[in-house]
Amino acid sequence: MRIPLALAAFALAVFPFVLSAATADEGMWTFDNFPSAKVKQLYGFAPDQKWLDRVRKASVRLDGGCSGSVVSKDGLVLTNHHCVSDCESDLSSAGNDYVEDGFLAPARKDEKICPGAEASILQSVTDVTQRVKKATANLPAAQVSAARAAEVAAIEKESCGEITTKRCEVVSLYRGGQYKLYVYDRFDDLRLVFAPEIQAAFFGSDPDNFNFPRYALDMALVRLYRSGQPAAFADPLKIDTAGAKEGELVFVPGNPGSTERLLTVSQLEFQRDQFLPWRIEYLAQIRGSLLAEGTKGEEEARQVNDSLLSVENSLKVFRGQRGALVEPSFFAVKVAEEKKLKEALASDPALKAKYGDPFADIQALIPTQKQAYLPYQMLEVRFGAGSVLLTDARALVRAAVERGKPDAQRLPEFAPARLKSTQGAVLAEAPVHPVLEKLEIVFWLDKTREYLGADHPAVKALFGSKTSTQIANEIITDTEVEDAAFRKKLWDNPGLIATTSDPAIALVKRIDAAARAARMKYETSVTGPSSVAAEKIANLRFDVLGQNIYPDANFTLRLSYGVVKGWNDPLYGDVKPFTYVSGLWERATGAFPFNLGKKWVGGQSKIPGGTQMNLVSTNDIVGGNSGSPLINKDARIVGLVFDGNIHSTGGAYGFDPALNRTVAVSSQLIVEALRRIYGANALAEELERKS
Amino acid sequence: MRIPLALAAFALAVFPFVLSAATADEGMWTFDNFPSAKVKQLYGFAPDQKWLDRVRKASVRLDGGCSGSVVSKDGLVLTNHHCVSDCESDLSSAGNDYVEDGFLAPARKDEKICPGAEASILQSVTDVTQRVKKATANLPAAQVSAARAAEVAAIEKESCGEITTKRCEVVSLYRGGQYKLYVYDRFDDLRLVFAPEIQAAFFGSDPDNFNFPRYALDMALVRLYRSGQPAAFADPLKIDTAGAKEGELVFVPGNPGSTERLLTVSQLEFQRDQFLPWRIEYLAQIRGSLLAEGTKGEEEARQVNDSLLSVENSLKVFRGQRGALVEPSFFAVKVAEEKKLKEALASDPALKAKYGDPFADIQALIPTQKQAYLPYQMLEVRFGAGSVLLTDARALVRAAVERGKPDAQRLPEFAPARLKSTQGAVLAEAPVHPVLEKLEIVFWLDKTREYLGADHPAVKALFGSKTSTQIANEIITDTEVEDAAFRKKLWDNPGLIATTSDPAIALVKRIDAAARAARMKYETSVTGPSSVAAEKIANLRFDVLGQNIYPDANFTLRLSYGVVKGWNDPLYGDVKPFTYVSGLWERATGAFPFNLGKKWVGGQSKIPGGTQMNLVSTNDIVGGNSGSPLINKDARIVGLVFDGNIHSTGGAYGFDPALNRTVAVSSQLIVEALRRIYGANALAEELERKS
Repeated sequence: MRIPLALAAFALAVFPFVLSAATADEGMWTFDNFPSAKVKQLYGFAPDQKWLDRVRKASVRLDGGCSGSVVSKDGLVLTNHHCVSDCESDLSSAGNDYVEDGFLAPARKDEKICPGAEASILQSVTDVTQRVKKATANLPAAQVSAARAAEVAAIEKESCGEITTKRCEVVSLYRGGQYKLYVYDRFDDLRLVFAPEIQAAFFGSDPDNFNFPRYALDMALVRLYRSGQPAAFADPLKIDTAGAKEGELVFVPGNPGSTERLLTVSQLEFQRDQFLPWRIEYLAQIRGSLLAEGTKGEEEARQVNDSLLSVENSLKVFRGQRGALVEPSFFAVKVAEEKKLKEALASDPALKAKYGDPFADIQALIPTQKQAYLPYQMLEVRFGAGSVLLTDARALVRAAVERGKPDAQRLPEFAPARLKSTQGAVLAEAPVHPVLEKLEIVFWLDKTREYLGADHPAVKALFGSKTSTQIANEIITDTEVEDAAFRKKLWDNPGLIATTSDPAIALVKRIDAAARAARMKYETSVTGPSSVAAEKIANLRFDVLGQNIYPDANFTLRLSYGVVKGWNDPLYGDVKPFTYVSGLWERATGAFPFNLGKKWVGGQSKIPGGTQMNLVSTNDIVGGNSGSPLINKDARIVGLVFDGNIHSTGGAYGFDPALNRTVAVSSQLIVEALRRIYGANALAEELERKS
Repeated sequence: MRIPLALAAFALAVFPFVLSAATADEGMWTFDNFPSAKVKQLYGFAPDQKWLDRVRKASVRLDGGCSGSVVSKDGLVLTNHHCVSDCESDLSSAGNDYVEDGFLAPARKDEKICPGAEASILQSVTDVTQRVKKATANLPAAQVSAARAAEVAAIEKESCGEITTKRCEVVSLYRGGQYKLYVYDRFDDLRLVFAPEIQAAFFGSDPDNFNFPRYALDMALVRLYRSGQPAAFADPLKIDTAGAKEGELVFVPGNPGSTERLLTVSQLEFQRDQFLPWRIEYLAQIRGSLLAEGTKGEEEARQVNDSLLSVENSLKVFRGQRGALVEPSFFAVKVAEEKKLKEALASDPALKAKYGDPFADIQALIPTQKQAYLPYQMLEVRFGAGSVLLTDARALVRAAVERGKPDAQRLPEFAPARLKSTQGAVLAEAPVHPVLEKLEIVFWLDKTREYLGADHPAVKALFGSKTSTQIANEIITDTEVEDAAFRKKLWDNPGLIATTSDPAIALVKRIDAAARAARMKYETSVTGPSSVAAEKIANLRFDVLGQNIYPDANFTLRLSYGVVKGWNDPLYGDVKPFTYVSGLWERATGAFPFNLGKKWVGGQSKIPGGTQMNLVSTNDIVGGNSGSPLINKDARIVGLVFDGNIHSTGGAYGFDPALNRTVAVSSQLIVEALRRIYGANALAEELERKS
């Protein structure tokens, strides 16, 4: 499960969605608004402030899109294999494939830096709502995005300056209902400590992804470093090797990536009818290309595999999201929720005077959004379709321009407090995979032409009189952007951008004005005006429903609660909450994707068949929660979250407590596998420490 | 434009659909119910019976999914390049690529047989509605499909017997409102005479497909043979090399493949929310794989290219169909049409007594359809995903069983009157493309597992302990099904099926019971009951709207009328109705897909720049009409239909006279190009004959 997440794949019918009156276990709650009273009432226990603070300080955000937890005083972080597979891929080479073979650092000195990786641990939260809103008050809607971005940049700069060990982010919660300054401890030295073979971590591969019963050891260990030394933590989380029990209360702290539960009905219709179908087709095509590319040879397969898994995961999520939105009973719930707010608005002149009709305001933007989203997506958001060369080239071209501007006028990613992360990402030493790069560049060029049309001026500028393959080949062959020293030279000498004939830089230069224009158009005519209306709806929602509601996920720290519990599946009947190692041996046919990881082959005597392997709970999570610990009321780790069940894939838009489940690796297995399968005794001891 | 067709690609916004009160120019009319009075009133001319008969007898159905017209007394048929590209591909080999290079038979003896191709010319139509309906009257809905198929087989056998020069088909019109026996002259010897290079025929390739202004010579010539000699025709159509004029009345006779304009609202919702999104994702993935496979080398590209074009064409169509159905103004028209029928039903007790509530009957089937369509699609309809080896293997396995059954119990494709075509398709000598076969088999296996789940019994039977790649490799390496002699041996000796260990046959045997069960389930629980309700709705529609309506397209002969006319495009403004050869030279950048066909390079002096190249008209057509002549009131050919504009891609569900256009090659270009570019003087003369 990767960012982004989503309710039900094609293989399964979508079942009528029942809005639970209790909406038990629903919500991805901020730590400063956790519904303790409700949880106490439901389960007889609720976390106190000390519990919350302790868990927060051990909760790690892996900034690439995952979560984790600090599990030793020496900065060891438990997360998922699929959260470090980018790192493994970057560290691998043609003869040395850590994704395939796994990785275990024999000693601390052998722990390997993950290029460009960063992590954050939340230290403080400050309400800055009034200041942000004041900066945009009474402005024309088209100017709101830029004015807000400038104020956010100013707040972040005041708070973090150039300090590289802190990260400051002004976060919008409830879609503009609140703005808060989140200050994190920032780590930019993460080292890979342990990862199992991908066939152990991702046994069953795409066919079993979002499936349960499941048999995956989707774990990895990384270590946070400061000044070249392991970072010190006073109070890491401890693992409970006894595992969880059925019915036990459990919590998931972590960073759910993105939900859209608070969108208006017209926005949901846009997602259902326009955006999601477009994304699904886009991803399905590149999936096919990645699959076929991988049949060219082992090296080609190695280069594309991580992207393939990411694409396949996203596809299941987007299918689930679309599946949820086309299910009439599900959509009716969203309509009913909005109706309640609209009726409140209509029946109260004071509210009406305060907010006008923000639902109609948003609806009026949809025709513009339909026209503007494809140029914005293709020229800006998905520029390069993942190509590292083109992404770096664009960052270099823009950095040269943006750093010369006053803070308030910069694109947000080049604002002072965020510049260090942008710079770190551009200058990190990481190998370029030419097979993957070429595929992505060709795909992006051709899809841009397909969606914008061959006669679009930007498309003509991109192609000239060449084919996509010719353009990609020239870049792969001649660019120096793959060389970190070249990137540093351009970063440090912005004037060189204008004179270099590097083909990757040249491509960016001939498209950047159009890309910026597409972004500007989208922000001034869609994002900005939508946010003005969304702020009003957020406040209306507070007025009508009170403060005991949770905001949409946005990759900030949240806490969800639930119990270890199977479900009654409309197609498959009762599904038990645990799987055991014995089931893995039964499922292994020997043929991919049901072949065992190499270290597991013949390992049946090494580990008791009755060891818990995976488990499910009713926690409400979404992509980005990958790597989160599943903890009990003593804040002990009883599992490692790595997936949701198939019903959870529509979770971006709603939560069904009867069917949605979190999927985790049992803590019974984690230490057992380290010791008995991988011979990682020192790590097992570090995890089991008695202190 | 291939079967199937469909209203507006992603690149374009979908525009509000206006239901024209006149619904000018709408309809794909049967020859026995052409709205002559209306056309006469609108345009001052209408075809008489003689005109209709003459045009019918020169209208050819190419049974692979296209149309054409007889243009000489010696059986020469004018159609599209893309209608013969399968044939070209079959006739090509690694060193000899007719698709790439084009083909011109130097003399008649050099005309090359298209393997497995068949053509039909409609000779008579007989109403058999009462007989078919009687056979299913009062049967439980689950038995209707089988009983109807048996009666249809009996009628076809009585009429055609074993005569190989006739084809008898009982056709359902108005979704069961009428059943008619169509008797055709059948041709199973079609020979390729001329085809230009694909870059001439399909200049602009996928980016320009469904685009206009357009610059394509999408033409080809084949000849119908009987007993080894060119078939004789007394009254072929003549070409008018002057071309058409703006505003001129024009007709399109041909075989539109499939429309679904008469579906109920609940059926349209199923298409919109389930079927079309599924097909689009499916096609997008195989598109990606075909594209990447083609980068392996020239021979790989040659083997996959025809499939790629077909997939890309279908994708644009399905996108257009989905785009139409999610456009609220379009869907509202469908809802309003149904409301009118429902109100008539509700207000007239006699109608209510006669029909009950067939709309509710269909709606009640949708949940079953949602569950049953994927197994049916993957195990039956898309079995093998296009693999010729698996398709032939299944036909052989089933032929062995079905031919031993009484007529009434056979699967329809093995009923006596249809057996000869099935046999012809299986036994035709055509090369197998191993690169394409492997890709399709792997794709089909993996997608079947994806949609049905790894734990589905049929999936377990398919895979056993092998990977999809292993299974495909075994088939490619070891099967003898590619050998026509082996196929003939198995066809003639059904007993061998049980004993052969051929891996393609073996795959079919281990899945065929499940495939038949999925088909049976779909037919008894969806198709059959739906057809019972659809018959009632069809009769209700006649009761309410009268007989002056046209049936949905179903690849039978139709006639549409319209005028040569551009359109006012909401995005691009006024679009003129003609393009000229001068525009081709301007658009040619030299880089694929905007490179010229080889014979055209440097040809600017050969052909006047002012020659009409392509044109548009308001005729209502859909995929399957490809290759139809565009004729004037004198039944002279003024164009060759090969595409619709982008707005026409939703045409399966409705027709917008303001925006939907037919796209054709001008008759000004056809003879000019044959003579001046291709040096095909004899053919030019055969086309231009004065008699």
